[in-house]
Amino acid sequence: MAAYDDLLDRYRRISNIGNAAGLLNWDQQVMMPDGGTPARSQQLAALSTTRHELLVSDETADLLDAAEAAGLEPAEQAVVREIRREYERETDVPSDLVDELTRTQSDAQETWQDAKAESDFESFAPTLRDLRDLHRDRAGYIDDAKSPYAVLFEDGEPYLPLSRVEQVFEELKAELPDLIEAIRESESEVAWPFEGSYDEDAQLALCRDALDFLGYDWDRGRLDTAPHPFMSGNQFDARITTRFKEGEPLDALTAAVHEFGHATYQLGLRDDAYATPLGEPRSSGVHESQSRFWENHVGRTRAFWEAFLPKFTDRFPQHADATVEDLYQAVNKVRPDNRIRVEADEITYHLHIILRCEIDRAFVEGDLAADEIPATWNEKMDQYLGVRPRNDAEGCLQDIHWSYGFAGFQNYTVGSVLAAQLEAAMEEDIGDLDAHIRRGEFEPMHEWLTENVHEHGCRYTTDELIEEATGEPLTAEYYLDHVREKFGELYDL
Amino acid sequence: MAAYDDLLDRYRRISNIGNAAGLLNWDQQVMMPDGGTPARSQQLAALSTTRHELLVSDETADLLDAAEAAGLEPAEQAVVREIRREYERETDVPSDLVDELTRTQSDAQETWQDAKAESDFESFAPTLRDLRDLHRDRAGYIDDAKSPYAVLFEDGEPYLPLSRVEQVFEELKAELPDLIEAIRESESEVAWPFEGSYDEDAQLALCRDALDFLGYDWDRGRLDTAPHPFMSGNQFDARITTRFKEGEPLDALTAAVHEFGHATYQLGLRDDAYATPLGEPRSSGVHESQSRFWENHVGRTRAFWEAFLPKFTDRFPQHADATVEDLYQAVNKVRPDNRIRVEADEITYHLHIILRCEIDRAFVEGDLAADEIPATWNEKMDQYLGVRPRNDAEGCLQDIHWSYGFAGFQNYTVGSVLAAQLEAAMEEDIGDLDAHIRRGEFEPMHEWLTENVHEHGCRYTTDELIEEATGEPLTAEYYLDHVREKFGELYDL
Repeated sequence: MAAYDDLLDRYRRISNIGNAAGLLNWDQQVMMPDGGTPARSQQLAALSTTRHELLVSDETADLLDAAEAAGLEPAEQAVVREIRREYERETDVPSDLVDELTRTQSDAQETWQDAKAESDFESFAPTLRDLRDLHRDRAGYIDDAKSPYAVLFEDGEPYLPLSRVEQVFEELKAELPDLIEAIRESESEVAWPFEGSYDEDAQLALCRDALDFLGYDWDRGRLDTAPHPFMSGNQFDARITTRFKEGEPLDALTAAVHEFGHATYQLGLRDDAYATPLGEPRSSGVHESQSRFWENHVGRTRAFWEAFLPKFTDRFPQHADATVEDLYQAVNKVRPDNRIRVEADEITYHLHIILRCEIDRAFVEGDLAADEIPATWNEKMDQYLGVRPRNDAEGCLQDIHWSYGFAGFQNYTVGSVLAAQLEAAMEEDIGDLDAHIRRGEFEPMHEWLTENVHEHGCRYTTDELIEEATGEPLTAEYYLDHVREKFGELYDL
Repeated sequence: MAAYDDLLDRYRRISNIGNAAGLLNWDQQVMMPDGGTPARSQQLAALSTTRHELLVSDETADLLDAAEAAGLEPAEQAVVREIRREYERETDVPSDLVDELTRTQSDAQETWQDAKAESDFESFAPTLRDLRDLHRDRAGYIDDAKSPYAVLFEDGEPYLPLSRVEQVFEELKAELPDLIEAIRESESEVAWPFEGSYDEDAQLALCRDALDFLGYDWDRGRLDTAPHPFMSGNQFDARITTRFKEGEPLDALTAAVHEFGHATYQLGLRDDAYATPLGEPRSSGVHESQSRFWENHVGRTRAFWEAFLPKFTDRFPQHADATVEDLYQAVNKVRPDNRIRVEADEITYHLHIILRCEIDRAFVEGDLAADEIPATWNEKMDQYLGVRPRNDAEGCLQDIHWSYGFAGFQNYTVGSVLAAQLEAAMEEDIGDLDAHIRRGEFEPMHEWLTENVHEHGCRYTTDELIEEATGEPLTAEYYLDHVREKFGELYDL
């Protein structure tokens, strides 16, 4: 047991250094003055190189060997399995590459922000190429027998093979375009009551109202604004951000509810397992299922608006006459002219993802050059969604994600699909969700998700976790049922 | 030269880990939700332990030996001297102690805040004893031939012996009490135009006005609020905080100008020497000279108020009729009823410091028990300043500093004394400061301080730096001249 305890101590240190880097990243996006980038990049590089060296040291290797040889309980075996996986993923990657990659990623955020502000993809392209090359190099060190893209995909989702995820994509591609086409041709009038501009302070206050309503623990969180909404933190401190669109008062709200879902995952992890694999989230896909659950299966329901409408009309008295139906329809309206992923409805969203994954893969695999990205992007937008971005800022520069890495977008779709699957299983246990939502009783939902998802941390693999929670493997079936029924009713299909 | 370059690379990593910890500390005081402490304490402990182990590793030792044996330029020799000093200061201190001390310090901040809020010293006393014991242990490992208090003093000021500083204290003790007595007996009426409460937003706006006026680089800084005003950062990102007193509109302003002074030091360090000894500040005492210079020799002058009065009356229209003399007198009024160090005038301030140093030393040396501190504090306040704190919150719990360490308060007085000495030298070079201040021309002052103090980093020892900049060793003479003249005129002595 001594080896196991020592291994866990060592891992805690490694994990805490990673969490410190997480805070530096949060700060860079939310608080840091622009001039701070050169120092921040060096700080982040120092942390990730140091974390890397501690992880791949001989001492870690020896402790892993000794712990694996000891007779451990299943939960302890899971801990060792996870540490082993991280170790194997980094042990062949040189420190210099880790250092260079981290600096490039940190600098890239600023470059991306500037490029987006100027809507100038060309100024981002050299950075993007550097990032691609560095990530490819890294993938080669991890496993040169596999395609680099499949290796990079495992960064976020280690226990669902890319092929399985692509099978889900095929199921979606077989149904969603027809559904979108039917919606486009529908003559049903779906409400859009908004006009003029909406005060940012009121939007922010409405976000706070919603977080209060849903049960956000302000003693372990905070809400700020950032160019790209995100969540950052751990079980003691899970912070969220949102941002404002002048003419769309539900946009910041939806983003805040989405990030709240991510925060619930962190906050549901076991306090006493902080900075160990049993107190860390399973994967990006499972994380996204939590944000999608709250965004789509709570925030975009009629029941939510039955309860929450008075807060909305309080904050925006110009809409004193708005009905539940107005808000429900507005928050679910399929707008074919929307070019922005994070503002997409539940259906078109996945075509935004499929487009990114296709470009992402082709670029990483060398089948697409950086300077071909804007045109390819616009082409595919036209093909899948019937709309063309008017510039790079609302096209291929809209997302920050490439500043961090590649092969991660799939997890957004995995999350949506899994959210619907979890909802169905939850309803088996706690009954009709709408009744809970209408009464503002979110505790049974939080409890179910904590018991079935959060509190396991990385105890189970993704497959095991999904089967434990829902009784079956990942499937697109529940998501497809959900959108067919919901949008069938809304658009009278 | 290879050894020198490698040593510098290694030091950069060590320094960047320290800077990352600095950001975590800033966040803990300014942004972190209360619930975040358990995770933050572990993160800080992981960083300081890792930093420590990198510093005292055999690799660092070998690189130091090799660099010292190489033929280096004087600036490089200074770099090696500083790294050697840090190495020697930590090499005998066990990692476990570093870890425990860091956790205790991080937890102590919350304990102190709660204790201060409840004005309950007893709830802070156990933590204070733990901190004292840990710091004493640390001092013993560093140098068990010296008094632990003298060893701890070198944390902040390595190149001015405590005995030299105590000599300066004696000079002050020989003059200040009589001066305070004369002021107390003076019949001169010094203005105090404030009454009622002052809006926090307006106070904050006035702080921003002052920082604009003095030339704060917002692209490399930010202003926030925290229970205890402080500055944090480096040459790319030097952030300041202030806080508000409802009835005293100049209090937040004075704190902001003080912290601005600290920020100028960081921002004046060489960009290209970031995270090396040539790009790091010399010492706590020299740092404090910069904050005191701007607070006292700029912010508390008539010339400043001649230029800045319109901003004040803009933000507080109830004072539309205030004169320069009103504000000048108010910001310099000696108020014997003040019990709070950070709100003290330029003279009584040093008795606050002397009191702390006496208690601090007696406590560390075992001559005073923790539970005797409140009574001793109140006794000394009565003796030195003729006023008794009404509770621990405005007595011995007023400062956060013991949460970090001991034997550091001396540097506040060193800073004040040095600020006056620097002002005299600066006037030799750029002429009457008041004329510059009145015209809002701060660039020549920034340039002088950068050239003579900031841009040297740790190139010179404290003694050398002071002699280079002012032509003589540290002396209380200029400070005493300054207060004699200023308060003699104000109080008609």
